[in-house]
Amino acid sequence: MMKRIGRYTIAFEDAPAIVGYGAVAGKKESEGPLGENFDKLFYDAYMGQDSFEKAESLLQQEAVSAALKRAEKTAEDVDFIFAGDLLNQCISSSFGLKEFNIPYLGQYGACSTMAQGLIMAAMTVSGGAARCSACVTSSHFCTAERQYRYPLEYGGQRTPTAQWTVTGSGCCVLASEGKAPRITAATVGRIADLGITDLNNMGAAMAPAAAETIVDFFRDTGTRPRDYNLILTGDLGLVGSRCLYDLLAEEGLEIKGRHNDCGLMIFDRSVQDVHSGGSGCGCAASVLCSSILPKMLDGKLENILFIATGALMSPLSAQQGNSIPAVAHLVNIVCG
Amino acid sequence: MMKRIGRYTIAFEDAPAIVGYGAVAGKKESEGPLGENFDKLFYDAYMGQDSFEKAESLLQQEAVSAALKRAEKTAEDVDFIFAGDLLNQCISSSFGLKEFNIPYLGQYGACSTMAQGLIMAAMTVSGGAARCSACVTSSHFCTAERQYRYPLEYGGQRTPTAQWTVTGSGCCVLASEGKAPRITAATVGRIADLGITDLNNMGAAMAPAAAETIVDFFRDTGTRPRDYNLILTGDLGLVGSRCLYDLLAEEGLEIKGRHNDCGLMIFDRSVQDVHSGGSGCGCAASVLCSSILPKMLDGKLENILFIATGALMSPLSAQQGNSIPAVAHLVNIVCG
Repeated sequence: MMKRIGRYTIAFEDAPAIVGYGAVAGKKESEGPLGENFDKLFYDAYMGQDSFEKAESLLQQEAVSAALKRAEKTAEDVDFIFAGDLLNQCISSSFGLKEFNIPYLGQYGACSTMAQGLIMAAMTVSGGAARCSACVTSSHFCTAERQYRYPLEYGGQRTPTAQWTVTGSGCCVLASEGKAPRITAATVGRIADLGITDLNNMGAAMAPAAAETIVDFFRDTGTRPRDYNLILTGDLGLVGSRCLYDLLAEEGLEIKGRHNDCGLMIFDRSVQDVHSGGSGCGCAASVLCSSILPKMLDGKLENILFIATGALMSPLSAQQGNSIPAVAHLVNIVCG
Repeated sequence: MMKRIGRYTIAFEDAPAIVGYGAVAGKKESEGPLGENFDKLFYDAYMGQDSFEKAESLLQQEAVSAALKRAEKTAEDVDFIFAGDLLNQCISSSFGLKEFNIPYLGQYGACSTMAQGLIMAAMTVSGGAARCSACVTSSHFCTAERQYRYPLEYGGQRTPTAQWTVTGSGCCVLASEGKAPRITAATVGRIADLGITDLNNMGAAMAPAAAETIVDFFRDTGTRPRDYNLILTGDLGLVGSRCLYDLLAEEGLEIKGRHNDCGLMIFDRSVQDVHSGGSGCGCAASVLCSSILPKMLDGKLENILFIATGALMSPLSAQQGNSIPAVAHLVNIVCG
């Protein structure tokens, strides 16, 4: 069962366990600081498929397969899969997962999707709707670039605030039992929009949502940043992380020493030409499932906050002159 | 709390109540058989906005406002809102709902979104995560037509199997207490794909998903079609409904006398030139919330199955030659 704490936070009294996880990534990610942590790496952007979109679907398949294997479960054991991605109509997920034949609930939270999926999966396990639930998300540089920005062949220039979409996918499998990292609480975000219109500065557009959700969580639980080993955001990048520090400072919260961002971890900004850092649904998902959950199991991290942020605009809404609404969801994961 | 029945079905032991509902629609819908049932009608496709997309966002706002009013609740009372639509990156929902400031969980199930949202909202209420949850979805003929098919100005010809996207929105507000229609069980669908590639025949693409989910539900619960007053599909239209009858007949299930389809109810096919019937997220949502739930409250319908189906392709996946995966989710609603 779940119960509410304060206005926006829910506590999972039975704390569903992340009994399996899997992460895969592409060539550029293989060359980054986390390269050796992934379950599988793909050096060809097509991954042997005839379109980049099919390659992204394959990323999800590989991440789900790796997570199921680690959980020692089959697709038959999974009662629900929560999945989403950045492509129009979330086709990476629907095409990627159809062969698994798992009851499917499509999610759209842009780059916040991994946190959203974790929350939904935890709710189904905690509430008794599922014995086992999974969540997965992905992104692919080549599919995102041509859908959101320019044809790849055009070679568009990037501003210093721009981020590089991660080619990768991460999947978690949750169940009620098992010695594993557990989801103890979560805060679902509200839509925040401070009027940013620059599509090349997603970090700034998403930072207010992250700040709001983090403030909500600390207020609801009566905890402070020092109570956590790591406060991990999804893909704010360098610019967005700095915005977040400023916004939280206004609320009297200092997270700098305990904060990291998946978009800053997955690439080495000094040599990989990714400007403000990595981004995309697959960024937070693949970092969590390759480099954070294993550290929790190894006893190197005990109590973390995972906050994934999503920008909820579309190319069309931007062309129509609208600002960028964003959302952030927070998951408290504890191990040991 | 929830418990599982059979392989794919969940029972809501405390049966969350639909304590409020609201539905709005456009001009063509106002001229159909259900015209007088909507809470509000908009005769101008722009609804006073400067784009069709903003008009669709306004449809969601109006449906949510009507549902909250009927529930005698404010946005402050709602712990989560589950929302989705057909537009790329679900912008009708994110832009439409941001002013409500309700914790937001974006859903993508194409035209199955209303059933999915009901299931998710019911899960949060039943599991103790929410005291009150809402779900909403919408579609708009003009936004869908130009995104999925042709520019409106082009005046494309339509095949006899084509459907007409409903301009409308429906919202339900769920809570644990209240004398109202209650959600007693649900079946989450798996992705079905029998290889249909004709984008002008969505009914045929979605019927296999509907059949599979309906068969799952009857098998899991041990019930038969005669146990329900109404078996209501979302937007299979005439062609899809006939496919569904054939597919269910192969399983020994006869639903013809008890079946209706929201896409067949909302328009008068004999005079409104909608070919196979209505479609879109807003079709199932606006029919349920204008014409079905009130009948349940009036005692004219006691026990119904609501099955919304979604086609999970995109224009790009179709251009790349892929078939159309589909999904269907089923909700059992009981009143009295």
